[in-house]
Amino acid sequence: MSDKKNIPYKIYLEESELPKQWYNVRADMKNKPAPLLNPATGKPVTLEELSGIFCEELAKQELDDTNAYIDIPEEIHTFYKMYRPAPLVRAYYLEKYLDTPAKIYYKFEGNNTSGSHKLNSAIAQAYYAKEQGLKGVTTETGAGQWGTALSMACSFFDLDCQVYMVKVSYEQKPFRREVMRTYGANVTPSPSDTTEVGRKILAEFPGTNGSLGCAISEAVEAAVSQEGYRYVLGSVLSQVLLHQSVIGLEAKAALEKYNEKADIIIGCAGGGSNLGGLISPFMGEKLRGEADYRIIAVEPSSCPSLTRGTYAYDFCDTGAICPLAKMYTLGSSFMPAPNHAGGLRYHGMSSVLSQLYDDRLMEATSVTQTEVFEAAEKFARVEGILPAPESSHAIKVAMDEALKCKETGEEKTILFGLTGTGYFDMYAYEKFHDGKMENYTLSDEEIAASIAKLPKVPGLE
Amino acid sequence: MSDKKNIPYKIYLEESELPKQWYNVRADMKNKPAPLLNPATGKPVTLEELSGIFCEELAKQELDDTNAYIDIPEEIHTFYKMYRPAPLVRAYYLEKYLDTPAKIYYKFEGNNTSGSHKLNSAIAQAYYAKEQGLKGVTTETGAGQWGTALSMACSFFDLDCQVYMVKVSYEQKPFRREVMRTYGANVTPSPSDTTEVGRKILAEFPGTNGSLGCAISEAVEAAVSQEGYRYVLGSVLSQVLLHQSVIGLEAKAALEKYNEKADIIIGCAGGGSNLGGLISPFMGEKLRGEADYRIIAVEPSSCPSLTRGTYAYDFCDTGAICPLAKMYTLGSSFMPAPNHAGGLRYHGMSSVLSQLYDDRLMEATSVTQTEVFEAAEKFARVEGILPAPESSHAIKVAMDEALKCKETGEEKTILFGLTGTGYFDMYAYEKFHDGKMENYTLSDEEIAASIAKLPKVPGLE
Repeated sequence: MSDKKNIPYKIYLEESELPKQWYNVRADMKNKPAPLLNPATGKPVTLEELSGIFCEELAKQELDDTNAYIDIPEEIHTFYKMYRPAPLVRAYYLEKYLDTPAKIYYKFEGNNTSGSHKLNSAIAQAYYAKEQGLKGVTTETGAGQWGTALSMACSFFDLDCQVYMVKVSYEQKPFRREVMRTYGANVTPSPSDTTEVGRKILAEFPGTNGSLGCAISEAVEAAVSQEGYRYVLGSVLSQVLLHQSVIGLEAKAALEKYNEKADIIIGCAGGGSNLGGLISPFMGEKLRGEADYRIIAVEPSSCPSLTRGTYAYDFCDTGAICPLAKMYTLGSSFMPAPNHAGGLRYHGMSSVLSQLYDDRLMEATSVTQTEVFEAAEKFARVEGILPAPESSHAIKVAMDEALKCKETGEEKTILFGLTGTGYFDMYAYEKFHDGKMENYTLSDEEIAASIAKLPKVPGLE
Repeated sequence: MSDKKNIPYKIYLEESELPKQWYNVRADMKNKPAPLLNPATGKPVTLEELSGIFCEELAKQELDDTNAYIDIPEEIHTFYKMYRPAPLVRAYYLEKYLDTPAKIYYKFEGNNTSGSHKLNSAIAQAYYAKEQGLKGVTTETGAGQWGTALSMACSFFDLDCQVYMVKVSYEQKPFRREVMRTYGANVTPSPSDTTEVGRKILAEFPGTNGSLGCAISEAVEAAVSQEGYRYVLGSVLSQVLLHQSVIGLEAKAALEKYNEKADIIIGCAGGGSNLGGLISPFMGEKLRGEADYRIIAVEPSSCPSLTRGTYAYDFCDTGAICPLAKMYTLGSSFMPAPNHAGGLRYHGMSSVLSQLYDDRLMEATSVTQTEVFEAAEKFARVEGILPAPESSHAIKVAMDEALKCKETGEEKTILFGLTGTGYFDMYAYEKFHDGKMENYTLSDEEIAASIAKLPKVPGLE
């Protein structure tokens, strides 16, 4: 239970050690992520086009693949101090339980009211919207973590916040909705009749439970059709990975403080915001040839965009009104089975991570829902933290890797991202306890059918 | 937003600064709390009698009013490191929002999965049960924070954990129940037909929603009727205040680190565990004449044991099977109105705090439910943390005191206890948002009727 180096259970950096700049991993990538395309022309979107959807500063960040470091504005830095630096935890009890020679660390991002890492980007996006003099922002939320984070951020900067919440989550998670209301947000179940695209989807699929892709379409329409509003997104985008780099920068600094070096870095991957943020500075070293790391993305077997998708241009949303992104995708028409890790039920993957994966700079693996909850419950019992289903995907693979070390006797250092807490996911835990949780693994035919519907891109056909 | 002394937003002590001893405030009290009495004889309970209900070591702590410091066993100290030291937060944003010259600090105990300070005593009680070679423990829970904390602690020491959960909470808070199941606890809605006292209460009050007093009676019966089991309680008892002194010891050490001294210390008070723990070391200085502090207990106007109760011997439980304690009480037959701060719905108050209050060493005030939720929502929006309804009683009064400073221009330092988070209380927030929350203030007649039923104590009549 003790360590030669006397490493504490929780490594807290000082507030003065909070990163002052985000790190933009794209700057160090030889093969840059493919540009976003205007679906009408097949040409890369311009700053002007993008600024109609996003705040201008965020549009700039989205297109910036050359500047490695971008200053964190003072207001955001000060807000970060309310809940950051986040602890890097040495999982002594998990190591003991697994009886492994591996050293396990996790970067815990759940100690803020949004319950996850999403707040890191939400506060940045709200800040730039305020700076631009906007009235408000629109967004979608699935599991509710992003919507909660954005509500908190908008409340802080006194911005109107309109959240389109996937209908099934809106109904199954009334308490998530209530947290957003506490922070003053307007929450609408999606699809709704408040947008044209929502009405169209409702007409085509009456009684649908909604999906993240639908909710994105509605939120984008709401943004572009209201004066003084822009759309913000909690994952997938390169700007989001940029903001989330604060996770990796802190984790790296905390490890270095104790002369530790990670061998394996593991994160769950839905749209890629957490994994992208966690690995950024480590990947930077790898890209520059300064160090090597095994990096593993973990996705649910019911929504395996990296492990079983295809690398192609696709829409980010179901309504097909967003720019096209080149990414590993199951097809924007893909409707994932009801896996309880709502944050991982997305058809595509960050363009940055997709390119890194395609370049064999990281690995990916998929796991089933029940094995994830088994790992989650074990983790809760030995480490005390009740993990979110999303985060538990990383826990499962971290435990597997630590057990491999037990077999080989290797004393590897494993770092994984514990993105958030599961307080609003107890319905899923209940199903698990009652033995009513099902696994969904897609057939090759299902995936092929969905991928066959990928959009034709003008000029790329 | 900055401070001359450069005080960070969150003051984290090092793990090496975690207190190694609990502080027993009774040792410094001139007027000791009145002893627990055996209701059959009217005589002070003996260690032997008490050891039939509680673990022996805990029974000793319960009776110990002379030793000022008690070592924290190594296993407990190590467990504490998983979530302690807890941060002392400087409420810069709240100060700014209130535009007050006052300096506001809060000791935040919500950053662990039980969501509150309750874990501090739960782990101690589970440890001593394990040390004694017991099979398991029984307890009651109202809002569910104590039950969750005890489930975590028992899971850690591999003890059986039987929780009697007030029926209305069991039904309204299925997710709390599910967290306890995640940690392996058995949860029974109370009153139940698994105990004699439960069956009796059900026969007398069919369709009752249950109460904390009933659940205590059931848990005690379950403990004494099973081989190898003892009963544990999350508040009221002097042993619990002892364990909770870790809150105050850390808060005091953190303030001293920055040469700060509290003028006013505020905490919510149900059974008294949080307030008692927070104030212990400060009260110790006050009792020894080394310093002075204004100390304020905050209770709900619907359950005002200190402000409107009477100081007398009473049962701790509704079933009248526990020892008698001298305390400020509304009568053990009192059934509080459905205030959403379940942790404050208790008819009595810790004997230690009752004596200190009777000796005018601390003040008490009561607040209504709606003003508490108004303060809670404001706090959430500016400080980012979603507070539990219980904790929000302290927030309300801290804000009031800070506003008084604004009027007088005094630069007082206010410290309050933020005992936990409100993630499982969103039903209450929903009622508040929908304008459906009611206030309950008791009439003098109601209180008099309840107090008239206080037990007759042999030899004290």
